[in-house]
Amino acid sequence: MHQITVCFTPAQFSYYQCEGCNAVVIDILRATTSICTAFMNGAKEVIPISSIDELKNHTGTEYVIAAERDGIKLDFADIGNSPYYFTKDIVDGKTIAYSTTNGTHTINLAAKCHSAAVGAFINISAICRWLETGKRDVFLLCAGWKGRFNLEDSIFAGAVAQKLIDTGKFTTICDSALAAMDLWSLASLDLTGYIKKAAQNERLRKINSDDAIPYCMEFDLTDIVPVFDDGVLRGARQQGNTWRYEL
Amino acid sequence: MHQITVCFTPAQFSYYQCEGCNAVVIDILRATTSICTAFMNGAKEVIPISSIDELKNHTGTEYVIAAERDGIKLDFADIGNSPYYFTKDIVDGKTIAYSTTNGTHTINLAAKCHSAAVGAFINISAICRWLETGKRDVFLLCAGWKGRFNLEDSIFAGAVAQKLIDTGKFTTICDSALAAMDLWSLASLDLTGYIKKAAQNERLRKINSDDAIPYCMEFDLTDIVPVFDDGVLRGARQQGNTWRYEL
Repeated sequence: MHQITVCFTPAQFSYYQCEGCNAVVIDILRATTSICTAFMNGAKEVIPISSIDELKNHTGTEYVIAAERDGIKLDFADIGNSPYYFTKDIVDGKTIAYSTTNGTHTINLAAKCHSAAVGAFINISAICRWLETGKRDVFLLCAGWKGRFNLEDSIFAGAVAQKLIDTGKFTTICDSALAAMDLWSLASLDLTGYIKKAAQNERLRKINSDDAIPYCMEFDLTDIVPVFDDGVLRGARQQGNTWRYEL
Repeated sequence: MHQITVCFTPAQFSYYQCEGCNAVVIDILRATTSICTAFMNGAKEVIPISSIDELKNHTGTEYVIAAERDGIKLDFADIGNSPYYFTKDIVDGKTIAYSTTNGTHTINLAAKCHSAAVGAFINISAICRWLETGKRDVFLLCAGWKGRFNLEDSIFAGAVAQKLIDTGKFTTICDSALAAMDLWSLASLDLTGYIKKAAQNERLRKINSDDAIPYCMEFDLTDIVPVFDDGVLRGARQQGNTWRYEL
């Protein structure tokens, strides 16, 4: 049996031992949903970049710069952080240089694990299959909000943990995982209704950017898993028991 | 309306602004339950001490040294961390020099708030009255386990948050508080049963120290609130709208 651990915020990352784990980075509203959307629409690579200065170095027609802070697109960026920006005509065949308030930093932390991928409701079944075929302990890392716990990432972690335990191949002794599954048991009764009380729902509403929230709560729009490898995310698809990069 | 914020672990403390808040430190299994028990049984003061070296300086008949690491009493200490040690014949009129794995460090952090007190199920109604009469924003700080989230502290935070909101004088926009209340709504159906899945339940069982867990889940055994003031905890009782130290 493989163990599942949930870490609610990057602020707690250093308190966990996760070097041998397969990790999933979770930033449902909206970074990891947008990254999954980018690959669904043909993006070649996504480079998660924490610093704004470094982001500005990625000029050239092969790049799309996607960047936001506190939900708002940075002025020099091509697009912001809504999944609706990552359309086929913008991202197909491109490399996305990507920076968000919480998500990109968290992806770079997760690189310390055995392998790391990006999860969202829109690829949840694929992520669970990736973890199942990976046959390792699992570390679910929520991006949270500026070091704090958030609801939407935690309930997603609970949904993944529950799906893995239901396979009979995983278990948990982690209180965060148990809490996340309990929250998921409540949230799953009415996901859209539940997420309305999340602070990020209100933050996005205030800046008129809550239009994509229902999209971020949709299940299984893509079977691609964005896998982090050597500083870059690439889209992988299952072929039997292995996962192959698309491009 | 006053705001309620829940911080699930000391590791996240620096990400919150709580200077103006009244804080409650929560370490249900077992530090804060034991501290409330000490005052219930006549202790004069409790000095929370993080370092073992500093603890050893408190020699003399006026002191009782209570100290554990990972649930086990340190050899030079008079007593360990079970509330059952804090009996009237041991603590009455004494100053307790107290050091535990997670609790004491957390109490010292909470000193950065406007005021800080110690809460447990055994004084939950008194703590809620202390917060209500305090008429300030509330910061509920869980000790967790070595930087990580734990279930027992979080459900207690949820219980307090729910009681405060039920007064109509408090509200919350904090995702951790919302999650804690949801967890409490599940746990309160069968508190003893719920807590059995907590990792700390298993840790204490392994070292034959789980005998006090049912006691730690009892409600309102005392109406004393241990308040942190100038490095020392003292027991306070309500007199009308003010709180007066007992000794």
